[in-house]
Amino acid sequence: MGLSATDITIFLLSLSVILFFARGLGELLRYFKQPIVIGEIIAGIILGPTILGTIFPGTFNSLFNQSEEVVTALNGITLLGVVMLLLVSGIEIDLSLVLRQSKAAVVISLLGILFPFSVGFFSAYFYPEFLGLTDPSLHLVFALFVGTALSITALPVVARTLMDLQIFKSEIGYLIMAAAMFNDLVGWIIFSVVLSMIGQNSGHSLSLSSLIIVIGSFLVFVLIFVRKFIDYSLPFIQKRFTFPGGVLNFIFILGFISAAFTEYIGVHAIFGVFIMGIAIGDSVHLKKETREIIYQFVTNIFAPLFFVSIGLRINFIENFDPLIVTVFLVLAFIGKVVGCGLGAYWGGLNKNDSLIIGFGMNSRGAMEIVLGTLAYQYGLINEKVFVALIIMALVTSISSAPIMNYFLKKVKTELSFHTLLKKEYVIFSSSQTKDEVIAELCKIVAVQKKLDFNLLYNSVMKREELITTGLEKHLAIPHARINTKESIIAAAVVRNGIEWNSLDKLPAKFIVLLLTPEDKPEIQLNLLSDIAKKYNDVKIIEEIIASKDANELISKVKQLY
Amino acid sequence: MGLSATDITIFLLSLSVILFFARGLGELLRYFKQPIVIGEIIAGIILGPTILGTIFPGTFNSLFNQSEEVVTALNGITLLGVVMLLLVSGIEIDLSLVLRQSKAAVVISLLGILFPFSVGFFSAYFYPEFLGLTDPSLHLVFALFVGTALSITALPVVARTLMDLQIFKSEIGYLIMAAAMFNDLVGWIIFSVVLSMIGQNSGHSLSLSSLIIVIGSFLVFVLIFVRKFIDYSLPFIQKRFTFPGGVLNFIFILGFISAAFTEYIGVHAIFGVFIMGIAIGDSVHLKKETREIIYQFVTNIFAPLFFVSIGLRINFIENFDPLIVTVFLVLAFIGKVVGCGLGAYWGGLNKNDSLIIGFGMNSRGAMEIVLGTLAYQYGLINEKVFVALIIMALVTSISSAPIMNYFLKKVKTELSFHTLLKKEYVIFSSSQTKDEVIAELCKIVAVQKKLDFNLLYNSVMKREELITTGLEKHLAIPHARINTKESIIAAAVVRNGIEWNSLDKLPAKFIVLLLTPEDKPEIQLNLLSDIAKKYNDVKIIEEIIASKDANELISKVKQLY
Repeated sequence: MGLSATDITIFLLSLSVILFFARGLGELLRYFKQPIVIGEIIAGIILGPTILGTIFPGTFNSLFNQSEEVVTALNGITLLGVVMLLLVSGIEIDLSLVLRQSKAAVVISLLGILFPFSVGFFSAYFYPEFLGLTDPSLHLVFALFVGTALSITALPVVARTLMDLQIFKSEIGYLIMAAAMFNDLVGWIIFSVVLSMIGQNSGHSLSLSSLIIVIGSFLVFVLIFVRKFIDYSLPFIQKRFTFPGGVLNFIFILGFISAAFTEYIGVHAIFGVFIMGIAIGDSVHLKKETREIIYQFVTNIFAPLFFVSIGLRINFIENFDPLIVTVFLVLAFIGKVVGCGLGAYWGGLNKNDSLIIGFGMNSRGAMEIVLGTLAYQYGLINEKVFVALIIMALVTSISSAPIMNYFLKKVKTELSFHTLLKKEYVIFSSSQTKDEVIAELCKIVAVQKKLDFNLLYNSVMKREELITTGLEKHLAIPHARINTKESIIAAAVVRNGIEWNSLDKLPAKFIVLLLTPEDKPEIQLNLLSDIAKKYNDVKIIEEIIASKDANELISKVKQLY
Repeated sequence: MGLSATDITIFLLSLSVILFFARGLGELLRYFKQPIVIGEIIAGIILGPTILGTIFPGTFNSLFNQSEEVVTALNGITLLGVVMLLLVSGIEIDLSLVLRQSKAAVVISLLGILFPFSVGFFSAYFYPEFLGLTDPSLHLVFALFVGTALSITALPVVARTLMDLQIFKSEIGYLIMAAAMFNDLVGWIIFSVVLSMIGQNSGHSLSLSSLIIVIGSFLVFVLIFVRKFIDYSLPFIQKRFTFPGGVLNFIFILGFISAAFTEYIGVHAIFGVFIMGIAIGDSVHLKKETREIIYQFVTNIFAPLFFVSIGLRINFIENFDPLIVTVFLVLAFIGKVVGCGLGAYWGGLNKNDSLIIGFGMNSRGAMEIVLGTLAYQYGLINEKVFVALIIMALVTSISSAPIMNYFLKKVKTELSFHTLLKKEYVIFSSSQTKDEVIAELCKIVAVQKKLDFNLLYNSVMKREELITTGLEKHLAIPHARINTKESIIAAAVVRNGIEWNSLDKLPAKFIVLLLTPEDKPEIQLNLLSDIAKKYNDVKIIEEIIASKDANELISKVKQLY
């Protein structure tokens, strides 16, 4: 095989050591409510030249520098790791969510890219030495890169953080996810252009303008035509070929070809596989089982190999430059928090919520690391900038959850679903549409509380148009902030289900109308998060809707607390 | 990364080409009711020097011989592929089934190894030139290797074939599976010793006897102590760590360490990972979901990379030696069919069933290919013998199903479950044990048919002791051949379930007693296969046992046909 027996021994041993430390530190970080990926990077720093290589250089060298063959084989696996990781990242992007963004999400997305990009670009363009530029011929490209690096958001880390804080399904959670997906997509497109500007030396003599045209055509081709092709092919493949073997191969073949193509035109392989991932993940025919197999195997076996390998390349202490690190950190926080925060504020959210969104989008995590690794490999940045980027990625990711939590806690109230819901406000409806059932619920509230029906109905529907309130697991929470002193909740059970455009495509069967005082936006966020948290279970919802009358429903709701 | 942009392009492109052809030909072969692995090997022959390399040498070289780096990276992936494949193979071995083998299975296993081993060993020892020995210094090792090569059985192919023929759950199916597992285990242990005899040059100066002691200690250590450790650790890991991430890492870490260890002592890595796989797969705490993720990803992504790579190494036409191929084919068929057939016959089966078992065990498939590849890499066999082994593996695997089918068809009868079952023979029992319910059923038959109860009961219980008749999905089919002209079926519904030592650990709820004429063994096989086939579904069994009386049960059984 070209690999000697010693090579094979070392190769397998180093894989097991990497996975062992990655898992161990990943779980430790998870214990402290931090993303696992951070533990994996720290594992690499421990196993790499920074710690192990300094204390036990012999052990380090025999594990990771044994022979050219082992290093190349490990690099091959690592490459496959990052390619597969981007495939999974692409699959997780919900293209339809990105396309049907609300006004607020669009403003957040755009400002969340433009502002940090400008901050990064102009800082690096006018003060390149502070940000560690070493090769003056790369001045412009470097500035573009710094802009991109600051505007990246790490979707998986963001999603994880939102879930940990139990606001994944809230309005704010949706906004952040939609904005982060858009951000990822645009960020990678810009980065692919930046990469192509330095990738020219790979031998393909396309001019920059031709390259942009090629990248644009590639995007259109994959996201429109190949996406349609995949959507048509999947049912056929699932039916005719071995399942899930056929689909798995189909996905990886498309991913690898797309990766090979973008690598060939001078953009990196991972851009191609990421875009192809989006096209694949968009198909409703892709079964959950298949996603799960790919997701679990890649994130648990391949992704750690990649993330650990980062620390193996470089000495983090030797290359730690306090000035560069500080500058990157400051620019990163200012760029993202101000950009997204302003976007949210202009998009109609209050100050507190805008800050939550700003810090929510601030995580750079895995994506920044992939981007930094590539820039370093391409010689665009030196060791010091690379280390600064990794530290920036770690700090922004680690700080995200606690800071968001601080702002979330500021708005805690004493109200909760089970104390607010009264049996007079519970109906069993046979409505067929969203509009009908919302009207029914508003009518009850209008009558009981002597409020204007039209005002209520219009506020709720206006909110609904902004972004769907269909959560997963048959739950929908239409809501609005109205001119009232008290919070009002009404609920409808619709056993036949109503299409509510929810993420899991399930029809809504338990519909909770939430009306809160317009001067206290924090109450809405709290109640939403409270309900979404408690009813995140098909079984509970099914039990609730099986109630024979309002009394039984109320008592079941109370039991849950 | 050490890999240039062109290297990465080619690396990813070749991976997608390999997966594409592997899947295409795999599905084609599956269409013709052949194991997918055969299609994967043919894909390699097409993409390798045999076809593509001869017709379009340029394309072949640029895809698979581009640069030293790409070849090494591909080799690393391939190595990982075969290591993971053996991990999965190990996990699939049911150690408890191997340990509690019936007399017949033990005889089949032993003769199924000893006879072909002797045939191979003595042929190669006395006529080495016919079997392609080129290095006289390896005379003894070569003879040992040929013996091992002939005595290997490919468990996954055997299982696939049994499932395709719908006799996986029959008595014969069980016998074949138990024997094949035992065979795999012993075969690999012998092979590891053979490998260690030539692996001496790897620098570890252990003598052969020390090596055998080390291998023995390793086996005891892993299969007893590590197995217990895994069984204790799994619930903890599944509870405390991310699921399934933690378990996946645990499994791969153990597998890689074990692989590294055996590689280090001069046996190949795959022996270690195979044995560790057995220890892992034996734990009842290992969840189906985890098995599924590993199984699907490995068999569909990594295994094809390995199997295709075989054809990439070698020109199958140039190295085709008709004499060597014929000798290997003849020895393989004689060794296995005669060995296992005799074992089965002496174990108490009739001639027809013994032949079915002989041909069932004859598939060499994937395991032979792994073994041949290693022997070739270690320089123990030359290209011609390697090609002969691969062809032998293909022919024995392809021929297995049709030949077994021929013998199975010879015994088809007109009888079937739904015509034989009468309502007087259906009971709803609240028995707590196997013995009780079998006694109940025998009593009914004894009374209705005026037969001797003790004779019936003892025959059935004797059969039961040989090997459990608990099939999967709550079904058990205790049976015996008795002195009668007609076939008799009685059935019991036991809603509380009775422990029946079945493979899926589910208690038996639908128990079918099968009494067939002792002079017509084919009737038993047919009826067993018929019932096992129709009732391989928890839902059907649940519907059957939900019947309120014998009439309803009978009518449900009839509806199924």
